[in-house]
Amino acid sequence: MAKRPVAVVILAAGQGTRMKSAQPKVLHPVAGRAMLGHVLDAAAVLKPARVIIVTGKGQDAVAAAAQPAKIAIQHPARGTGHAVMAALPALKGFRGDVVVLFGDTPLLTTALIQNLLAARRGKDDPAAVIVGFRPVDPAAYGRLIVDGKGKLQKIVEFKNASEEERAVRLCNAGLVAFDSERLPALLKKLSDKNAQGEFLLTDTVEHANAKGWTCRVVEADPVEVMGINTRAELSVAEAAMQQRLRLAAMAGGVTMTAPETVYLRKDTQFGRDVVIEPFVVFGPKVSVGDNVVIRSHSHIEGASIAEGATVGPFARLRPGAKLAANAHVGNFVEIKNASIEAGAKVNHLTYIGDARVGAKANIGAGTITCNYDGYDKHHTDIGAGAFIGSNSALVAPVKIGDGAIVAAGSVITRNVPADALSLGRGRQEDKPGKAAAFRKAKVATRKKK
Amino acid sequence: MAKRPVAVVILAAGQGTRMKSAQPKVLHPVAGRAMLGHVLDAAAVLKPARVIIVTGKGQDAVAAAAQPAKIAIQHPARGTGHAVMAALPALKGFRGDVVVLFGDTPLLTTALIQNLLAARRGKDDPAAVIVGFRPVDPAAYGRLIVDGKGKLQKIVEFKNASEEERAVRLCNAGLVAFDSERLPALLKKLSDKNAQGEFLLTDTVEHANAKGWTCRVVEADPVEVMGINTRAELSVAEAAMQQRLRLAAMAGGVTMTAPETVYLRKDTQFGRDVVIEPFVVFGPKVSVGDNVVIRSHSHIEGASIAEGATVGPFARLRPGAKLAANAHVGNFVEIKNASIEAGAKVNHLTYIGDARVGAKANIGAGTITCNYDGYDKHHTDIGAGAFIGSNSALVAPVKIGDGAIVAAGSVITRNVPADALSLGRGRQEDKPGKAAAFRKAKVATRKKK
Amino acid sequence: MAKRPVAVVILAAGQGTRMKSAQPKVLHPVAGRAMLGHVLDAAAVLKPARVIIVTGKGQDAVAAAAQPAKIAIQHPARGTGHAVMAALPALKGFRGDVVVLFGDTPLLTTALIQNLLAARRGKDDPAAVIVGFRPVDPAAYGRLIVDGKGKLQKIVEFKNASEEERAVRLCNAGLVAFDSERLPALLKKLSDKNAQGEFLLTDTVEHANAKGWTCRVVEADPVEVMGINTRAELSVAEAAMQQRLRLAAMAGGVTMTAPETVYLRKDTQFGRDVVIEPFVVFGPKVSVGDNVVIRSHSHIEGASIAEGATVGPFARLRPGAKLAANAHVGNFVEIKNASIEAGAKVNHLTYIGDARVGAKANIGAGTITCNYDGYDKHHTDIGAGAFIGSNSALVAPVKIGDGAIVAAGSVITRNVPADALSLGRGRQEDKPGKAAAFRKAKVATRKKK
Repeated sequence: MAKRPVAVVILAAGQGTRMKSAQPKVLHPVAGRAMLGHVLDAAAVLKPARVIIVTGKGQDAVAAAAQPAKIAIQHPARGTGHAVMAALPALKGFRGDVVVLFGDTPLLTTALIQNLLAARRGKDDPAAVIVGFRPVDPAAYGRLIVDGKGKLQKIVEFKNASEEERAVRLCNAGLVAFDSERLPALLKKLSDKNAQGEFLLTDTVEHANAKGWTCRVVEADPVEVMGINTRAELSVAEAAMQQRLRLAAMAGGVTMTAPETVYLRKDTQFGRDVVIEPFVVFGPKVSVGDNVVIRSHSHIEGASIAEGATVGPFARLRPGAKLAANAHVGNFVEIKNASIEAGAKVNHLTYIGDARVGAKANIGAGTITCNYDGYDKHHTDIGAGAFIGSNSALVAPVKIGDGAIVAAGSVITRNVPADALSLGRGRQEDKPGKAAAFRKAKVATRKKK
Repeated sequence: MAKRPVAVVILAAGQGTRMKSAQPKVLHPVAGRAMLGHVLDAAAVLKPARVIIVTGKGQDAVAAAAQPAKIAIQHPARGTGHAVMAALPALKGFRGDVVVLFGDTPLLTTALIQNLLAARRGKDDPAAVIVGFRPVDPAAYGRLIVDGKGKLQKIVEFKNASEEERAVRLCNAGLVAFDSERLPALLKKLSDKNAQGEFLLTDTVEHANAKGWTCRVVEADPVEVMGINTRAELSVAEAAMQQRLRLAAMAGGVTMTAPETVYLRKDTQFGRDVVIEPFVVFGPKVSVGDNVVIRSHSHIEGASIAEGATVGPFARLRPGAKLAANAHVGNFVEIKNASIEAGAKVNHLTYIGDARVGAKANIGAGTITCNYDGYDKHHTDIGAGAFIGSNSALVAPVKIGDGAIVAAGSVITRNVPADALSLGRGRQEDKPGKAAAFRKAKVATRKKK
Repeated sequence: MAKRPVAVVILAAGQGTRMKSAQPKVLHPVAGRAMLGHVLDAAAVLKPARVIIVTGKGQDAVAAAAQPAKIAIQHPARGTGHAVMAALPALKGFRGDVVVLFGDTPLLTTALIQNLLAARRGKDDPAAVIVGFRPVDPAAYGRLIVDGKGKLQKIVEFKNASEEERAVRLCNAGLVAFDSERLPALLKKLSDKNAQGEFLLTDTVEHANAKGWTCRVVEADPVEVMGINTRAELSVAEAAMQQRLRLAAMAGGVTMTAPETVYLRKDTQFGRDVVIEPFVVFGPKVSVGDNVVIRSHSHIEGASIAEGATVGPFARLRPGAKLAANAHVGNFVEIKNASIEAGAKVNHLTYIGDARVGAKANIGAGTITCNYDGYDKHHTDIGAGAFIGSNSALVAPVKIGDGAIVAAGSVITRNVPADALSLGRGRQEDKPGKAAAFRKAKVATRKKK
């Protein structure tokens, strides 16, 4: 099969009213990425010569998200065939295969598009290849009627189908690959004189057959062609996408105690013998090295975690968190834009932001880097082997030298030299009997009331 | 169909020994509300003329929870028919339809009761209408034997059923609607001369038919009539209830990344384009405005959250938390009985209780409002645009003026004027070489040991 | 049936390459315990006279984990029959029943082994009893061909099976009980002249039948004999184990709002009327008393929690945490090696480590016990009825007397007498207009840029 250019047309003009949202439907995310983005990703692997998004008038957000794809505006929306007609100007001069996809099928795979193209380029040179699928409950779908040689004879809407046709389980998923040279002629034949009052892309099959051109079917896993119309369906797609990502991670050597409670992104990267406990959420741009343990109830985004590090439970790593080998980040700790160097420990109730924590430094419970003055962010630099006593506030910009000790409860506003001990706290004063007197007064007041 | 009065009798005398609990079975909660409460809710929509709870002797907690319903005591417990007999005095003078429900079916819907009443009031004026259902595994249930005209001929216990009767899938759910005028006569016919040694309400069907009175069946979704006898079944009911609540929320325009990890209450209210990440628990009395994002691992009860606010991850909103538009509450933050005004930020490791945080104020990490003196709670008032430095303690009652700045690590015990800078912390003192000396001494001590 | 000695041989030499792990497969944990450990546990109940682990060369970690079992080394790995041959020296002088198990079936139960032994000791004295199971999809498994009298005639590999044999649903699980006296003769007959090129233990059946010795089958739940070869299968085993543990807990009187989000250990102990909210993880060695409420998002290991105590949400109890009756541990609180005595409250953003908190003491938000000096851990003792103001640091070793009050924001470095009030904090100083000036300067700087 010779290499032919591919043009991808993605239909994304649907209003998505059942989403009950101010946001266009195809921009609703699955695993943190817009549905349309997943379809673009699946197509991009094939290096298409052109990518055209057909969207509605005023859907600027869709156009912005689809860049650098070409945008074709369909207005008013008069059916899927009409949408592809709207894309024709953007296809001018293109010769090759035209694949028509949908912006609301986030589980589409590159493999399916490849199968579709392979069938289009098969030796009987079909004018159109349709994606079919076998849903558990085929009731409402159009049926694909295929002859003994695998040629698609027609697509019958369910309501027009005979008893025998209804017994067919193979249904129309709507995705089509066309030969670009025969596509305009097929579109020209379309009419909106039908029950829907729309120009339907699937009617091209009837017209192709009428011209004696072959049509074929490629079968897909129902999940791959699942179209999303409601938030409930969106959550089903999310679950399916997460399941894909989890299985891939486990196959690569990650243990998940409870994979169904771990949420991943497409770009989450794992080393070998990583352990992930329950209730962990990954945001974008996370890489995790070998032998890392992510304990339960952790939330991690934009972070790199080197081999042997331990995170959580109840840890939050925000963008720019970099944990070196064997670093420990413990419970109720937030790390943002900060390097935690090798073997350093930040174990309890701490905020480290815009900072470096040197190798083997120990950050006491309740430590806060005061990085923000209401206008600007400032840097805190903590040297190797430093020990920050609990409940200290380090007012940035500030530098704690290597091996320095900050006494518990200190407020540090100036640099601390290496190996120095620094204190910045009040002096303890005890007032004997005052607590007892306070309680007595309180009780007396209550009695009066 | 004329409007007839309705009386509701709810059987709630079961001991629930399989729950292994000191608490009466019907008071175990589903979605935070007692099972009996859900049944009362479903009935209340119909504005019944009387509601009667049949409970056991000494089950005062049930009686208290059922207020203002009338209580009928069944003692000893001698079957479902006997329980309805116990309710007869409370039905004295009532004329209309009597619906007999169970206190341990928390998934009952108003629609099912309405269907039951509609059938009772049908043109053949049945004496009794029974709820039937088709379980996946009907083995143990009594079978409803219906004739060609839909009339219920008899209810056969499984163990007494013929092969042909066992093949019937329609089973007895136990709920019944009676014509109040014929009910006493039917109850009078009941006997405990049977295998169970109990007066069985379902035996009324046999007696009605013997009198030539019609009986009918209304079919229910098995979930609706699911009776709870164990904690495992309770958890299944909880899951079913949560699924109902989640689907309703999503249908209204809420995105849930992982709906199966979000726990709602019946009274949780959502605006449009709300996003809820995984692992979020809602307690009672929460309202959430448009475009709010609830990030993962959050726990929210008794709170109102206005449009555009962001909550979490790892946030806890307790009763009386009021977030105004675009407020931010971040990780490891607890808000209790406090207003966070428009655009204010409380992002890290903070406790705000009994307080107001003015518009656009910024609360640094580790801030604590010291609202409790061991006896009384006091109020903290933080003005608009104020900036509270990290790790500060604000000792209530105290007022921080608009635009004031509190330096990091301060303990504030007196009011701070507007636009003032307030400090309340120790002065830093550095002791050069002392950290190195400390380490040396420690190492020396260890060697001695 | 006379009591006969039992020897258990556990095959654990598999490399587990599909795990993609540096750790031997049988040491991967389920519910926190190595798979091999679960098999050892199931066998230990029977008090076997000998336990022999057959492992590969260099798998020292397996040998270490299996102590005090005897270790037999199989090298190279030439099949399951070869593995049992490797165990023969360790069986020298043993007379009784030899049960051959697998180290990668963590869901094995003692009951199954007992059934196997009972069949082995049945009146027809079979030479071998094989465990069979009926998987949902039997495709790939060997089929057990049983005659009308329940005697196992042969085990047919799927690829060698006739159409009729393939229709048999009863499959070979691989576990076998042998009569020790006939086992050597059967092993001697094994050959590696087969498609796998291995000595297969199941071929003993053929040889036994050839000698006129009876073979029998005992049927198992497919879950019990599930062998783990990948991390995805490991997660399925984890889910099944958790489900067992949850059902047992609920049957004993524990309410779990969402049992599928609660992770238990085999040794987790519960009283009655315990409530566990969603998203709770238990580590090893936890006991929970009657009427305890564990709120959502909590993580508990090595802790004892007495009756009426409340934990969470967002609480972490680490080893050595001991909560007495009616103690409260609230959100973003970590307790480690510390006693929280009756009715004491530690409700917010606190770290209590190496400490005692006396009865009815109240620990304010943001309190930290500074227990670590970089070298040693020190103890904090807080007396009954003491009140620790918020954001205080208690620098251990230190003792706060009964009824003492520590003012908010204090750093306490010396013992506080009973009933005394202790303060250790800076004095507040207000600089009028300074905040406004700061802002003005900041804005001016920005304009310059």
